[in-house]
Amino acid sequence: MNAICYLNNRFRNYGEAVLHISDLGLQRGYSIFDYFLEMEGRIPFFDDYLDRFYASADLLHMKVPLCRKDLKEKIGELLQQNKLGTSGIKLLLTGGYSEDLYSPSTPNFMILNLPVFHQPGDFGEGVKLILLDFQRHIPEVKTTFYLPSIVLFPKLRETGAVEVLYHHNGLISETTRANIFLIKNNSLITPFPGVLRGITRKHVLSVAKDLLAVEEREVRLEELRDSQEVFITGTSKHVAPVIEIEGKRIGNGKPGGWTRVISEAYEHLFNKT
Amino acid sequence: MNAICYLNNRFRNYGEAVLHISDLGLQRGYSIFDYFLEMEGRIPFFDDYLDRFYASADLLHMKVPLCRKDLKEKIGELLQQNKLGTSGIKLLLTGGYSEDLYSPSTPNFMILNLPVFHQPGDFGEGVKLILLDFQRHIPEVKTTFYLPSIVLFPKLRETGAVEVLYHHNGLISETTRANIFLIKNNSLITPFPGVLRGITRKHVLSVAKDLLAVEEREVRLEELRDSQEVFITGTSKHVAPVIEIEGKRIGNGKPGGWTRVISEAYEHLFNKT
Repeated sequence: MNAICYLNNRFRNYGEAVLHISDLGLQRGYSIFDYFLEMEGRIPFFDDYLDRFYASADLLHMKVPLCRKDLKEKIGELLQQNKLGTSGIKLLLTGGYSEDLYSPSTPNFMILNLPVFHQPGDFGEGVKLILLDFQRHIPEVKTTFYLPSIVLFPKLRETGAVEVLYHHNGLISETTRANIFLIKNNSLITPFPGVLRGITRKHVLSVAKDLLAVEEREVRLEELRDSQEVFITGTSKHVAPVIEIEGKRIGNGKPGGWTRVISEAYEHLFNKT
Repeated sequence: MNAICYLNNRFRNYGEAVLHISDLGLQRGYSIFDYFLEMEGRIPFFDDYLDRFYASADLLHMKVPLCRKDLKEKIGELLQQNKLGTSGIKLLLTGGYSEDLYSPSTPNFMILNLPVFHQPGDFGEGVKLILLDFQRHIPEVKTTFYLPSIVLFPKLRETGAVEVLYHHNGLISETTRANIFLIKNNSLITPFPGVLRGITRKHVLSVAKDLLAVEEREVRLEELRDSQEVFITGTSKHVAPVIEIEGKRIGNGKPGGWTRVISEAYEHLFNKT
């Protein structure tokens, strides 16, 4: 990748962007991030993502070194420089360089502008999930702790699954990089609380409310069994039908009708925002 | 700090040791480490620590780039170069530089030789703990995810506590950087499973077995209430008495007799190994 990135107050070539090894994100996982898409210079739901990023920082007592206005400006400049057209934008804020490798200091902050590795349409035929007993700590905060899923790469490859669905104490929460929704008795159900407040999740809920009954509540693992349809939502995947979880077929093993209707309503909103 | 460190196959000045920002330890918390002490060139329980480090790597499908013999040699050279006398040695292995910032590649590996920030004796008068509902994922593996405790720094400062004690579903497991032991009815009790197999824990158990009854088992949070004594064990702290947990006094609020006896037996072993 030859793009320009922004690191600690200046633009640099991505290939030359380094941090000292005393960084607390590296040494102690003290770090938050966010990720959103550029569509030909436009950033759908831009303020939602920035709201979440600043809120994550607050919850960890970290200070984003740029105010919202300046951050938007820097992102704009970065997109101008890279001209990727369709791209991903990743903000990452760490606990900073730490003398004792434990105590936070002045945060390190970067903005990365990345090629997009897949299109929402790639998941149109439905995806498979596998299960993991895990609950993210402070789930409202988008931390960098993805180890529980990455360690399952061999199983993901073997099963052809794309995401890991977390459950704990009998409740499901979310997948590694997406929120989950069930259709049961023609109602739309999604776990709450204990999940990341996904921006796609938020807007799917808003468009779905005009289409069918919506419930945000605790969802038991067993409820997957008698769901008509299941789908996941995320920034990259938009609305992706789920056709199999841990080897068990959902519905008739094909993307469902409600999923398609909701997906179309979301795409309409995404493209006009 | 002006010490030399070892990073990816060569010795460097610590101040100049950097990683590219695509490192998976930084981006996704995919990283393990270990930490042990040098006492004037001698490394107590050296092989125990290396056993654990290689086992952590195996469990995450990561390959330590040096075999044990070469690793010991590099550590020896590093201590020779730095001549700190009493020091800490930290091994850190990450998922490597990742093109998609998600998939592991060739690991990055470093050996840091650090000054010691406190002495075991610093904790002789007893420490305070605070509680947190949290269970480490794959607790046998020494991952870098310390965010749950670091976010509690304000509360630690305010209460004067030095460590956070994790409990979940009614069971206690371990503190941020130590294992925990209770004395009840003149038996020594320590949580198992669901904890890091601390090297100090292991040797405390071995010396304690000659002194009193020992139980490794699930330990309920309520059991703290009627414990005669509580102590924690760790590489830096050795055996540290606990005199208060979440504002509640343990025993008479002073280090207990069993704790002293066990601590002395451990120090004897530590100094001769």
